[in-house]
Amino acid sequence: MEQDKLATKRKVIETALTLFKVNGYHGTSVRDISKNANVNIATISYYFKGKQGLLEHIIVEFLEGYVKILDQHCLLLYDKNAKKILKDLVEDVLNYYYIKKESTSIFYRELTLDSVFIREIMITYLTRERYIFSQIYDAIRYSNSKVTMPFSVFFVQLKSFLSTPYLFPGYLNEVLYIQQNDLYFFERYKEYVEKWIESLLDTDENIISHVELSS
Amino acid sequence: MEQDKLATKRKVIETALTLFKVNGYHGTSVRDISKNANVNIATISYYFKGKQGLLEHIIVEFLEGYVKILDQHCLLLYDKNAKKILKDLVEDVLNYYYIKKESTSIFYRELTLDSVFIREIMITYLTRERYIFSQIYDAIRYSNSKVTMPFSVFFVQLKSFLSTPYLFPGYLNEVLYIQQNDLYFFERYKEYVEKWIESLLDTDENIISHVELSS
Repeated sequence: MEQDKLATKRKVIETALTLFKVNGYHGTSVRDISKNANVNIATISYYFKGKQGLLEHIIVEFLEGYVKILDQHCLLLYDKNAKKILKDLVEDVLNYYYIKKESTSIFYRELTLDSVFIREIMITYLTRERYIFSQIYDAIRYSNSKVTMPFSVFFVQLKSFLSTPYLFPGYLNEVLYIQQNDLYFFERYKEYVEKWIESLLDTDENIISHVELSS
Repeated sequence: MEQDKLATKRKVIETALTLFKVNGYHGTSVRDISKNANVNIATISYYFKGKQGLLEHIIVEFLEGYVKILDQHCLLLYDKNAKKILKDLVEDVLNYYYIKKESTSIFYRELTLDSVFIREIMITYLTRERYIFSQIYDAIRYSNSKVTMPFSVFFVQLKSFLSTPYLFPGYLNEVLYIQQNDLYFFERYKEYVEKWIESLLDTDENIISHVELSS
């Protein structure tokens, strides 16, 4: 019984992921989701309180997993080289986005808009994301005075590399002939994000023995 | 009389730019535009055939100006160093986007979606954009065998740098405290896009005397 409920919820989520991604949130109706998932509208309302609830569920689930990855890496700041942490973290994030490509697309597209929900997300998850990256970046600068790029520029450019492959799936497909599950492209892309990080921080560096972490 | 018409059209466009950017296309009604521009709905219908027509007008006007910049630089491929062309072109594009920030935001947000209009835009303007950048990139590789980054990766990363500051205005403002007209940030950002290009192509290079341009 409980299994059935979970399976139904999952089916609704998977269907919404596909439809939101292809047709956008506004281009998808609860009726479309109900029809494609073969689940009646009342059930969707019961589990998610409608379309907005479904969108929020998808984005929160995505961000929970994301922030978990950030936290894990941030904890290592006490006893690991900060540059190495940044590189490992970025690799893990790129892998996570690749696996969760539908959610990534939906989340970043919503982030282009201004809504009450997005403002809540910014206050909770995205402020935490910025904080963690700034801690790591500060640790790098602390150990290496040659890193002069302002954090804001670094972070906007990093975020741009992370989000772009998922923001324009149609464009990538139609104009650049890159499929969303093109693993060859994805691996090359990752390689050059890493090179970009290398080139930014490409100077002698000492291992940081201790970094003050204040909240 | 003709002046009045132009002024009215311009006022409608400017109002739509602001509203589309802040509330999104779906979050803006013709009534909102009419009220804010102080122009009646019939006039908007007459000039633009409604909201979709206005959106298309804004995006086409933006892309016409953009492609003009691309064409100008591409013409120089016959008698100028390709790396220099790329750097000058990217600088001009960044300046154009900065000046046209509302249109840039609206265009790139629309590009995240799949619609008939966006498909037309891809076939016309964006295929041309890719073609011009690939010509310049090929010219660079022709003169320098050490440039090994695949064009697709280069282009996606370049596009990500160009579009991101305009895709998430609310996020940049709320989480990173970057205003859309923060010239200091913009100049630093531009500087590091240029450094990225440098680091990619950072090898000895000969001036190309002639590059075959085929269409």
